[in-house]
Amino acid sequence: MSDTFWAELAWVGDVPAAQVRIEVDDGVIVAVVPGTDPATGDERLPGIVLPGFANAHSHAFHRALRGRTHTGRGSFWTWRTSMYALAERLTPDSYHRLALAVYAEMALAGVTVVGEFHYLHHGPGGAPYADPNAMAAALRQAAADAGVRLTLLDTCYLTGGIGQPLGGAQLRFGDGTAVRWAERASDLRDDPMTRVGAAIHSVRAVPPDAVAVVAEWAARRGAPLHVHLSEQVAENEATLAAYGRTPARLLADHGALTDRTTAVHANHVDDGDIALLGAARSAVCACPTTEQDLADGLSPARALASAGSPLCLGSDQHAVVDLLAEARLLEMHERLGTGRRGSFTPAELVAALTHRGHTALGWPGNGRIAVGAAADLVAVRTDTVRTAGTDPAQIALTAGAADVHTVVAGGRTIVRDGRHERGDVAGLFAEAIDPLWEFA
Amino acid sequence: MSDTFWAELAWVGDVPAAQVRIEVDDGVIVAVVPGTDPATGDERLPGIVLPGFANAHSHAFHRALRGRTHTGRGSFWTWRTSMYALAERLTPDSYHRLALAVYAEMALAGVTVVGEFHYLHHGPGGAPYADPNAMAAALRQAAADAGVRLTLLDTCYLTGGIGQPLGGAQLRFGDGTAVRWAERASDLRDDPMTRVGAAIHSVRAVPPDAVAVVAEWAARRGAPLHVHLSEQVAENEATLAAYGRTPARLLADHGALTDRTTAVHANHVDDGDIALLGAARSAVCACPTTEQDLADGLSPARALASAGSPLCLGSDQHAVVDLLAEARLLEMHERLGTGRRGSFTPAELVAALTHRGHTALGWPGNGRIAVGAAADLVAVRTDTVRTAGTDPAQIALTAGAADVHTVVAGGRTIVRDGRHERGDVAGLFAEAIDPLWEFA
Repeated sequence: MSDTFWAELAWVGDVPAAQVRIEVDDGVIVAVVPGTDPATGDERLPGIVLPGFANAHSHAFHRALRGRTHTGRGSFWTWRTSMYALAERLTPDSYHRLALAVYAEMALAGVTVVGEFHYLHHGPGGAPYADPNAMAAALRQAAADAGVRLTLLDTCYLTGGIGQPLGGAQLRFGDGTAVRWAERASDLRDDPMTRVGAAIHSVRAVPPDAVAVVAEWAARRGAPLHVHLSEQVAENEATLAAYGRTPARLLADHGALTDRTTAVHANHVDDGDIALLGAARSAVCACPTTEQDLADGLSPARALASAGSPLCLGSDQHAVVDLLAEARLLEMHERLGTGRRGSFTPAELVAALTHRGHTALGWPGNGRIAVGAAADLVAVRTDTVRTAGTDPAQIALTAGAADVHTVVAGGRTIVRDGRHERGDVAGLFAEAIDPLWEFA
Repeated sequence: MSDTFWAELAWVGDVPAAQVRIEVDDGVIVAVVPGTDPATGDERLPGIVLPGFANAHSHAFHRALRGRTHTGRGSFWTWRTSMYALAERLTPDSYHRLALAVYAEMALAGVTVVGEFHYLHHGPGGAPYADPNAMAAALRQAAADAGVRLTLLDTCYLTGGIGQPLGGAQLRFGDGTAVRWAERASDLRDDPMTRVGAAIHSVRAVPPDAVAVVAEWAARRGAPLHVHLSEQVAENEATLAAYGRTPARLLADHGALTDRTTAVHANHVDDGDIALLGAARSAVCACPTTEQDLADGLSPARALASAGSPLCLGSDQHAVVDLLAEARLLEMHERLGTGRRGSFTPAELVAALTHRGHTALGWPGNGRIAVGAAADLVAVRTDTVRTAGTDPAQIALTAGAADVHTVVAGGRTIVRDGRHERGDVAGLFAEAIDPLWEFA
């Protein structure tokens, strides 16, 4: 299957290039020719065409909490109580329905690869399903149905806090030991649109010896390894008290900080942690809409990047699914923290949105408009009220998900004129979410 | 002219009410009946209907800077240099073109009243136009053309900093003295869709005796009085050095803090300032997208509200025109600053978005779905990918400008199905902005 696209403007290398033909064969880009006229039969893409966006940190089921938790005061920890109540209700079927809508919402926002940080493994009370990976299968099918690539970050989750047993909804997350986690995860297979990776939920939920087991599992496979890191000050305090070191140091000491690692959040890291992460070339996934929604605080993103950590982006709990907004907020939170503008260039923001995320999810080479990359393309309109009259080179500072016109993933056009090929995605949400709250 | 609207959900008082008929006569709401079926001929509004949004702080011409200033590092003060370069190029004609597009973009976002903080009074070098209020006339016409109500906050701007003469583009802002400012401003007349108010640019730009003159002018007319307050730490430092008191105290000492006053930003106010503003019942206009874009820092919005200051919202320099986003960020910035969720209830966010802003702009009674209020209605879709599956009572936490379906202003439907009655607003921007940058 071959196809040719033509764009008035496309992001090639680190800048917009004019009049670009992009030839695709079997889902892969085989030629990129700037400065050329369109030929008959070329599919013209409007606006400015960016590489496909990577959503490097997703908890799909949290989407059902959007617009449902703002009824009183609280913190990250009270929000977590609502999230657990929701987790208790999901089945492989209802999870497939919900995740399909979530991944389709992501596609509408320009996402062509999602990293699912997946820990909702087992049935109620922790009883395994007949297929112990039934929930993973539901996610894999949902991504395939939505037309996006998936990195399934199968998550080890063993304790309810340092030294505390799992309880309540958490029982569904646990495999008992890291070795049993590894046995189950080892049954998962890559496919052309799915990459299997590992995750350590956090140093709160995975003891040090188990951290080492998961890290070794990922190393043996050359697989991506993701971990929640220092999202909350309380995690740092508990880790220092229990182990006499910071969470980042604990991970480093057990082989979990490598250039295949992505630390998610890293809000409350100190200078030593930043140096450790940078020296290891571990990526950092910023989730600014979540970090503000959950009152996590600002993150030292510029310092992390300068120390050597590639930055990528995630919509995490999906209070908002708009990766362009995440990119913009990466810069905005830095401005709020430092009083300076322009900590990140437009090219750095696009890199975080695209190839940095693909690499963190185990798809190096993708997320670029370049020969050999997957044909993942996002046409962002430059003629909406939001983007009109602006410089397309600064599109990451002006556009949002509502400006995404066309999305091509692996050569297949999954979104056209702002509509997903599966039709009414909002309707899918109503069907998926409303029944979950009838039990509330 | 009478008309009747019917909504499945409408914001009445402080909560959503179901199945609401809203009868309108001559642009004013004459009946609100919840719990009733629609009658033949009623215009059905989709989603949840909120009162018209107030954009309480606008500098219309700054919209031409969107997506054009992110080329290097900088601060508020370097951004201001770009803004001045733009200010030098505008004429009454080009300003009308630009402001019409800006006010239409606001209408698309649900805004039915805008407070224009207007200081671009004179021709190049400060030479008055034949009509000394030609630029104000351009703004008045633009708002009328866009179908929104205008509060023209005619701004006194006398110095380029404390004790410094105006220079460069600033010459266009100045009237020489506060008395000459008052003479010119006194020629402006209210009309059914326009209210004339006053503004003190800031204590940087208006000496204390002139502050008193402007405050007295506003008091005599019972007009709204707006002022930029403590947006930057540098303003506080300069004011303390020159006058031995904070900007808020300086305003209070010269009669400028009353219940007709709106302090814009108030990011860097101390506890004494907060107490002064609250005791005076002066409103505070938060502009969160601007405050993050210009690296102004977080604001103590909750503390200001608790002290007695009604909060309203503005999109200010229009890097973003999305008042729902401003409302959401009011809460999000508080979360980033305090580590707590839920500082503002959904009802408080809607109040800031609606009647608090109308009141701050001199239209008390408007911004409510209530008998006697102007028939300003905003139907926000609950069936988009952003809002589907969420609680409509939390709409201010989930929706954005792209979800606005219908906007009625003074009984006239100016936006329907997300389209402004004037057609292609993005096209208006291209026509208005591109020529301004050809001279750059």
